[in-house]
Amino acid sequence: MQNPVLVEVTRGEIVESRHRGMAVVVDGDGAEVMRLGDVETPVFPRSAVKSMQALPLIETGAADRYGFGNKELALACASHSGEPGHMQLAGEMAGRAGLSEADFECGCHWSSEQKVLIAQARAGDKPNQLGNNCSGKHAGFLCLACHAGVDHHGYVGYDHFVQASVRDVMSDLTGTALGHDNCGTDGCSIPTYAAPLRNIAHGFARMASGAGLGPERAKAAERLMSACMAEPWHVAGTGRACTALMQIAPGRIFAKTGAEGVFCATVPEKGYGIALKCEDGSTRGAEAMIGAVLAKLFADDEEVSSRLGDWSRKTLKNWNGIEVGRIRPLGELA
Amino acid sequence: MQNPVLVEVTRGEIVESRHRGMAVVVDGDGAEVMRLGDVETPVFPRSAVKSMQALPLIETGAADRYGFGNKELALACASHSGEPGHMQLAGEMAGRAGLSEADFECGCHWSSEQKVLIAQARAGDKPNQLGNNCSGKHAGFLCLACHAGVDHHGYVGYDHFVQASVRDVMSDLTGTALGHDNCGTDGCSIPTYAAPLRNIAHGFARMASGAGLGPERAKAAERLMSACMAEPWHVAGTGRACTALMQIAPGRIFAKTGAEGVFCATVPEKGYGIALKCEDGSTRGAEAMIGAVLAKLFADDEEVSSRLGDWSRKTLKNWNGIEVGRIRPLGELA
Repeated sequence: MQNPVLVEVTRGEIVESRHRGMAVVVDGDGAEVMRLGDVETPVFPRSAVKSMQALPLIETGAADRYGFGNKELALACASHSGEPGHMQLAGEMAGRAGLSEADFECGCHWSSEQKVLIAQARAGDKPNQLGNNCSGKHAGFLCLACHAGVDHHGYVGYDHFVQASVRDVMSDLTGTALGHDNCGTDGCSIPTYAAPLRNIAHGFARMASGAGLGPERAKAAERLMSACMAEPWHVAGTGRACTALMQIAPGRIFAKTGAEGVFCATVPEKGYGIALKCEDGSTRGAEAMIGAVLAKLFADDEEVSSRLGDWSRKTLKNWNGIEVGRIRPLGELA
Repeated sequence: MQNPVLVEVTRGEIVESRHRGMAVVVDGDGAEVMRLGDVETPVFPRSAVKSMQALPLIETGAADRYGFGNKELALACASHSGEPGHMQLAGEMAGRAGLSEADFECGCHWSSEQKVLIAQARAGDKPNQLGNNCSGKHAGFLCLACHAGVDHHGYVGYDHFVQASVRDVMSDLTGTALGHDNCGTDGCSIPTYAAPLRNIAHGFARMASGAGLGPERAKAAERLMSACMAEPWHVAGTGRACTALMQIAPGRIFAKTGAEGVFCATVPEKGYGIALKCEDGSTRGAEAMIGAVLAKLFADDEEVSSRLGDWSRKTLKNWNGIEVGRIRPLGELA
């Protein structure tokens, strides 16, 4: 199946590059609201499902034991930019379980945000694990292990209690058997499981609507997404897409990106779950797509829809600040 | 027309992302040696045609007047990483015409290579125009204007002598009428003209073979490509694709990338010109494609072909250094 071109990049009046994608919106019962391209072939959701991966943290009582509020829960669901506030809170979260940076197993990297990276380099910093974009999630994993009385060493491993707990929750939410057959290793070394976009979207619709979930899980899902919507900077960072989308309509959009062009979202008031992927893995493509999909879903609110649509279209400037082109959704997303 | 998937990115055993592309190889007479996808729709070649843009520098005698050797000519054709050696030489080139960094009109940016950027930030540097990846080309433009006795101010403008000279040469080489209708503004503020990949490849085949060129132009083209092949670090930089490809088969491959997933190359001994573009504009896609195309063209030299093929396939590692996936050409490029 050919996935449709959903985003184009222009220079002057000419189309320079094209992004194909697949996207699906479903409600809590799994009924499709929108569908573009192949949403049945399994894809890795990567970091877009961190809120699903954080459910055991709440369901086991670990989040309450360590006194996690909205900021901590948002950071547990985050792919953050490694700004000082993100790094400090990730360290504090692990500290509440008596652990420190050395106990993380996510690896180090410089911030992917140039401004943050330059500030780090100028300050003489070196990358440490708290600056890993996944450090909030890993802090949550460490706390989950400690609360359960399980040795935290090797918590990123497929067979560890932490990853088994995550796998169970994700399998349940997406209605997909997850195991070695559809497993890859994520950037931060934990297993990531490929599932059809349709199933991932349905999982998010369940989280948003509570449909088909037990009361504990429905409550935990609501708590996590509310925390992210209340503290959007903690989910990504300054100038980042997830943060911006959640700021456009506070409390009405939950949005989370993943590597290789994935974007997931929910519209809680409608009980919708959204999952999309830019076929080529590009971030700019996925961002334009999620903005355009959300603009369509908010068609009944002209102001929000307009702001989402504006956000989905970017102006490209060159090194002299001259406007040279645009990124814009097209076709069914125009 | 649907462009074929030419590169896939895997994670574990599963395909995670796909890159479509279009590629064409022609000889000096314009006969097609290889053709994949739509090579007739005009595309912006961006920086991949810097060697064409440098022809007036030689043809007018400016390069000789200012004593440019291989390194200077390679830098005039370069999209460099802004390493200290690149920046210093760009400044020296302008200096030979009595000009300095303030006379450049390319704009400033930090290096796109993280190691270089970090070193710059740690040293307390700020971006200046010599660090712009196009500064060597702009040094050439400044020298071209000065040698011709033309006011260099505004040399990036469509109507300036420098850009008119460049446009004439490129129009002649590609057999394409270039003007406002197919013009966009490049990252460094000069005009860039969209032309069919087939015509761009033919232009490079002419440069590589001399076919259909006057003796002066044929000699100038040979001199520029030889300079780049002799000094591949000056064309890009440490660890960069153009540099690596030219180092794999010294003197036998000229290769130059452009923004938005363009790659052009020549194989002088065969008189072939190559032009390709990754449909979505991605660099990783274009790099895998050019390595695979060149590997096919060197099928008669097992060692070179094997090294090019190896180079075209990348192993992806995560932040802990664990191998998580691959980038590999497929289909007709496998």
